[in-house]
Amino acid sequence: MKDRLLRALKCQPVDRTPVWVMRQAGRYLPEYRAVREQAGSFLNLCQNPELACEVTLQPLRRFGLDGAILFSDILTIPDAMGLGLTVNEGEGPRFARPIRRVSQIDQLTAPDAETDIGYVLEAVRLIRQQLADTVPLIGFAGSPWTLATYMIEGESSRDFRHSKGLLHAEPGRMHQLLEILTEAVGRYLHAQIVAGVQAVMIFDTWGGTLAHADYQEFSLAYLSQIVAALQAELGVDAVPIILFTKGGGQWLSEIADTGCDAVGIDWTQSLFRARQMVADRVALQGNLDPAVLRAPPDTIRREVKRVLADYGPGPGHIFNLGHGITPDINPDHMAVMVDAVREFGQSTL
Amino acid sequence: MKDRLLRALKCQPVDRTPVWVMRQAGRYLPEYRAVREQAGSFLNLCQNPELACEVTLQPLRRFGLDGAILFSDILTIPDAMGLGLTVNEGEGPRFARPIRRVSQIDQLTAPDAETDIGYVLEAVRLIRQQLADTVPLIGFAGSPWTLATYMIEGESSRDFRHSKGLLHAEPGRMHQLLEILTEAVGRYLHAQIVAGVQAVMIFDTWGGTLAHADYQEFSLAYLSQIVAALQAELGVDAVPIILFTKGGGQWLSEIADTGCDAVGIDWTQSLFRARQMVADRVALQGNLDPAVLRAPPDTIRREVKRVLADYGPGPGHIFNLGHGITPDINPDHMAVMVDAVREFGQSTL
Repeated sequence: MKDRLLRALKCQPVDRTPVWVMRQAGRYLPEYRAVREQAGSFLNLCQNPELACEVTLQPLRRFGLDGAILFSDILTIPDAMGLGLTVNEGEGPRFARPIRRVSQIDQLTAPDAETDIGYVLEAVRLIRQQLADTVPLIGFAGSPWTLATYMIEGESSRDFRHSKGLLHAEPGRMHQLLEILTEAVGRYLHAQIVAGVQAVMIFDTWGGTLAHADYQEFSLAYLSQIVAALQAELGVDAVPIILFTKGGGQWLSEIADTGCDAVGIDWTQSLFRARQMVADRVALQGNLDPAVLRAPPDTIRREVKRVLADYGPGPGHIFNLGHGITPDINPDHMAVMVDAVREFGQSTL
Repeated sequence: MKDRLLRALKCQPVDRTPVWVMRQAGRYLPEYRAVREQAGSFLNLCQNPELACEVTLQPLRRFGLDGAILFSDILTIPDAMGLGLTVNEGEGPRFARPIRRVSQIDQLTAPDAETDIGYVLEAVRLIRQQLADTVPLIGFAGSPWTLATYMIEGESSRDFRHSKGLLHAEPGRMHQLLEILTEAVGRYLHAQIVAGVQAVMIFDTWGGTLAHADYQEFSLAYLSQIVAALQAELGVDAVPIILFTKGGGQWLSEIADTGCDAVGIDWTQSLFRARQMVADRVALQGNLDPAVLRAPPDTIRREVKRVLADYGPGPGHIFNLGHGITPDINPDHMAVMVDAVREFGQSTL
């Protein structure tokens, strides 16, 4: 069943629980590291459609996965806005020109995806061609709030000092920035869909660091606008939209209220409870603790069964980790996990 | 009303919402930094009862706080167990002899609080004497799971690779370690109470990094045992017990089930919703985002009002931050916050 993933994202019956993994095209694979080496840098790899296509397809050759996810980075948008992205292995991303004065926000505009981030769309077209309809291709973007934190902090942060500082001191300016980013993310995902992706996921990696009320106002409201805009442009049934706020297990009902099709769940929330919270209005994607992939094979199989049992009977479950797979994982352990989902995942036909 | 804090912890009516702050005796205060300098090291400061007493009292001289919290560190227990603690400013704690082989667990025993961690109890006695019943003194300990992560990782961690590794590969060994730590924490808090603390708080700083089912089995179950043991030894009404799992907003109902008196809430959960989850069985402590203290005074006042309004009418709210105050905060901003709680906190008499 080649549309297992797309059907599950729409809560339709499938022959067994589909499985894919965040960062499945990544550093834990020796063949990825070889291509990354050849590219010279992480960003060169992102910006070279042929190489991005190659690493996107690598995990599909090894594992029986039900979907491909575009190899790219959430920071392509701020890079296209002129902030000057560099990514050093181990250190994470860094912007040469972060937002340090609010007046800089006036200079920002949403990039044109086709002219400014065309290399991603070219990669999408190549991957779709290579996939030849075997499994669907997932596109993605970062959430406006998550992009804003990187643009303001200039790099990864633990306390989000500058971004929360702007939010508290000049909320109007933060909204101004988030509106620009919302337009940018909406346009970018729309362009990815036109180029061929068959589902999209928005990564709200840092929404879970916000206070409850701030999350609703500064992250979720903009996720909601993007979902509404895509559905207005393309139709509600066109392309499944997955929202994922890491650390957002307490807000699942509100996330489902956006009208998205599926919600990503990290490992700290029970899928059983998550399902009660969203009242089966959306599909749920997750949520094995990525640390389990360091455990012996028997433990991996046991924990896969536990996640499947936690979701319980009925359609609408997409098996995934609760966050990205980490570079230190043995690919054989990934295989044990994928095989266990294929063995124990339920049929809802 | 000098027992405002203790009454609120028992959900009894008070003349206004009490307020104290995690890490209120800490690096954001210049007078703390002076004493810390004099002590030579953070651990010297912890181990010197006179100096620990002095820094405990410092914030009470500046702000109208409703409670003092013992100045100490959660890692006094593993240090007393022979792991060799050092704490370097900026770097965090480090153990000279972390647990690297499971056989080391066989060598561990719960320390005797009076002989092995007597400097803390001496500080408690001194502080109580100096406080002369003006405000109550809160004692504390780390949770067994949180202590175990430091003992196994040997230092602060972001992915808890070794501790989760042990949990998954040899759960029986992890339980063995947690049982020893549960006995140690129970004895230590009991000794603090005998020495004079009038409430105790258990900091489960890293419980929120566990998968849902693992949290119940490897952290909450042991918190529950400690609550039951203290209440069996001292009586249910003797000393209020506060449990705080950072990132545990989804588990509040289970935390309340332990029989504790109050639950600490970080800033990502709404107090309104938290109150619904615990069905007013326990008091709630929190939950202003510590980042708000970097904002202008008007914003601080607005956000204090929002937290108070979020809790709503009725007893059982103790105002606090959602996590510790950070070293970069201007003490004047702390004063703005405390004054705002005193001005806007409700009477439930």
